[in-house]
Amino acid sequence: NSDLEKEEIKEKLEDYHDNDIAQAFEEVTPDVRKKLISLMDEEQISDIFSYIEDLDLYLEEMDMHSVARIIENMDADDAVDLLEDMDEEVQNQLIEMIDDESKEDIRLIQSYEDDEIGSYMTTNFVSIKEDSTIRQAMKSVVEQAGENDNIMTIYVLSKEDTFCGAIALKDLICARQNDALEDLIVTSYPYVSDREKISDCIEWIKDYAEDSYPVLNSEMKILGIITAQDIIEVVDDEMGDDYAKLAGLTAEEDLNETTKQSMKKRLPWLVALLFLGMLVSSVVGVFEGVVSKVAIIVCFQSLILDMAGNVGTQSLAVTIRVLMDENLSGKQKIGLIFKESRVGLCNGFLLGSLSFLFIGIYLIVLKGYDVFHGFCISGCVGIALLVAMIISSIVGTIVPMFFHRIKVDPAVASGPLITTVNDLVAVITYYGMAWILLIELFKFY
Amino acid sequence: NSDLEKEEIKEKLEDYHDNDIAQAFEEVTPDVRKKLISLMDEEQISDIFSYIEDLDLYLEEMDMHSVARIIENMDADDAVDLLEDMDEEVQNQLIEMIDDESKEDIRLIQSYEDDEIGSYMTTNFVSIKEDSTIRQAMKSVVEQAGENDNIMTIYVLSKEDTFCGAIALKDLICARQNDALEDLIVTSYPYVSDREKISDCIEWIKDYAEDSYPVLNSEMKILGIITAQDIIEVVDDEMGDDYAKLAGLTAEEDLNETTKQSMKKRLPWLVALLFLGMLVSSVVGVFEGVVSKVAIIVCFQSLILDMAGNVGTQSLAVTIRVLMDENLSGKQKIGLIFKESRVGLCNGFLLGSLSFLFIGIYLIVLKGYDVFHGFCISGCVGIALLVAMIISSIVGTIVPMFFHRIKVDPAVASGPLITTVNDLVAVITYYGMAWILLIELFKFY
Repeated sequence: NSDLEKEEIKEKLEDYHDNDIAQAFEEVTPDVRKKLISLMDEEQISDIFSYIEDLDLYLEEMDMHSVARIIENMDADDAVDLLEDMDEEVQNQLIEMIDDESKEDIRLIQSYEDDEIGSYMTTNFVSIKEDSTIRQAMKSVVEQAGENDNIMTIYVLSKEDTFCGAIALKDLICARQNDALEDLIVTSYPYVSDREKISDCIEWIKDYAEDSYPVLNSEMKILGIITAQDIIEVVDDEMGDDYAKLAGLTAEEDLNETTKQSMKKRLPWLVALLFLGMLVSSVVGVFEGVVSKVAIIVCFQSLILDMAGNVGTQSLAVTIRVLMDENLSGKQKIGLIFKESRVGLCNGFLLGSLSFLFIGIYLIVLKGYDVFHGFCISGCVGIALLVAMIISSIVGTIVPMFFHRIKVDPAVASGPLITTVNDLVAVITYYGMAWILLIELFKFY
Repeated sequence: NSDLEKEEIKEKLEDYHDNDIAQAFEEVTPDVRKKLISLMDEEQISDIFSYIEDLDLYLEEMDMHSVARIIENMDADDAVDLLEDMDEEVQNQLIEMIDDESKEDIRLIQSYEDDEIGSYMTTNFVSIKEDSTIRQAMKSVVEQAGENDNIMTIYVLSKEDTFCGAIALKDLICARQNDALEDLIVTSYPYVSDREKISDCIEWIKDYAEDSYPVLNSEMKILGIITAQDIIEVVDDEMGDDYAKLAGLTAEEDLNETTKQSMKKRLPWLVALLFLGMLVSSVVGVFEGVVSKVAIIVCFQSLILDMAGNVGTQSLAVTIRVLMDENLSGKQKIGLIFKESRVGLCNGFLLGSLSFLFIGIYLIVLKGYDVFHGFCISGCVGIALLVAMIISSIVGTIVPMFFHRIKVDPAVASGPLITTVNDLVAVITYYGMAWILLIELFKFY
């Protein structure tokens, strides 16, 4: 490697994709890394560094001035992410050292909460004036393109610098010199506002399938843009969150956390669930008398509770997905509840019959019950299963709708409530019926 | 509306974003829709129609020739989606009526399986020859841009028409006339191959954060591209799938399905779970003798099973997420298992102590047990909870790793297996300990 001329290495590096170089960086020794970095200009290094995750490790190998130059060249949102991983002291030192324009951009993005659109935006975009000619516009885009590489959509500003539309670069390139710029502008181009929550507009934004969207402040001035790549990131993060939410973790976990950090994220829900579980237990306690007389029915408690839980989770999954995708009218909501209860009824009838049959046979053949007695017990199981599945379907649909209505994330809140309600319903139905049917009516015990 | 001149409406329409017009289309009457459509050219209609979901309804209002022209103007992948929703007969009629180039593109995309990259690609891209000058390249891009609007990245072909790199449009625009085109080409630009499965390369692709990726066949010829918008769609679909998978649905559901369709998607898992549940029941049946003697311990069975389930789901969620994001070495995997069991031990110890205390007090105060007796029973609950939580954590980590190893989607397969194993472990521990401690050792009964 060291035999090749520097120029040659430099040229070779330019042929590679920045992400590949970034990955190579993670594998070579600090010495090689230093040498490679010394061969590249700051812009190139910034581009490569935007692909590296644990960047702070590499920056420690470099002097503060180079780091400041690199940060200047990064997109402001990437720079903010990077700074956030550093010590506060280093952070402040670095911010002092970078130029005013970058500093301003970074301060702007840092001023937003994590869930606000503003914190996701980049100031890397190009804009032109409404009253330009095609030729002026093209020249201005070429000038700005050196610094800002999101040129697919060009934003158009009015005389007062407010946002008044967008032009696709393609249209500008294909336009004839004498066309009016005005005719190319899409004036009702979708935009978002800086203080909006990302979760509130992500679904809406996605529908437009554009490469970028302008972020406006309350005076309709354009502060930055959100790119398709930002949206991929947000959707991707949401996906990780789904699992975390359904499992009752307060935040996503990663590989390198300490046991204590992990416990902190998991304990809150577990403790809540423990006490909800104790509530269910005390209700079962009411039926202690029934249990002591008909011990065999205890065997099937777990079956009924598990099935109720499974059915409830299915309804929950369907409902959350539907709520996420569409704005339902009241009529559609009631329709969904009816549909879910219909599905619950049909599935419950099938599974109830199956368990009536199989459990009856199991009791008669393996446990030595007589036919009437065996099928009475399995009948209790079958009917309890049917009732539990219908009610679980309804609960699994109504509860997330309720949370959605009061603007609480249904994926987080619904799980434990549904489990508890379903457990209670299932237990009361099952033991209640066993008591009425087996003890009071047929007087088996 | 009808008072305005046609030209005026036409101009107004051009100011709006295609997605907004698409949405307006869904709200107006068929008559108004017809009038609006008659004012627009086919390309514009195609653009608007690419935003409409239930397009087949509108196409029924139009004559076949117009539909064929519109399909010609659509991106080939959108056209395929649209054709798939139609009757086979109509489909064949339409395909006959469209021009050869579009027909070929559509046939190509239709030749791939749903999960292959090829079925997601679009033939809407621009390419230039390796040996062009900057000026020739720019001219060629402008010519192609009229038909193909994904111009952000320009693909470079060798003399033999094989893929040999990509140029960012920005670099081409900013280049000087005399620069060598060769210097602008990123020769190691990432690509995917047409027969690859989308799920296998989506994580890898996302890392490059490019606007599009070329799709190559086995001869390195470029067939089409995958855009950032395609990736957003895939990631988005995956997200819906997550919920569906964890809930044991065989596919995502939507609002307008019949009860029968929904049942079909839900029943397979439910039946499987029913029989697994029966297995657990028959194990509980072994302990019938213990239950009939110490009826009170039944109350806490649901508590222990639910908590084991919750802890297992948390470990599952963390493990699936980690497996999805990273390629773990064997050492890291063992590290994760140890970490999870440590977290399970600590949380189990805390929750076990809590339930020992609270359940003991509940039994003594509300159920009239003496202190020693009460705390013996709650001790059984506490210890069973601790053991169940440790084992659930380990099972919740190992099972998804196993499925990941044998290339089965861990999110689909893990849930039921983990629930069953955990239920079995929890039931055996709990009743086993109650039997040894309460009946054999202290001889309470």
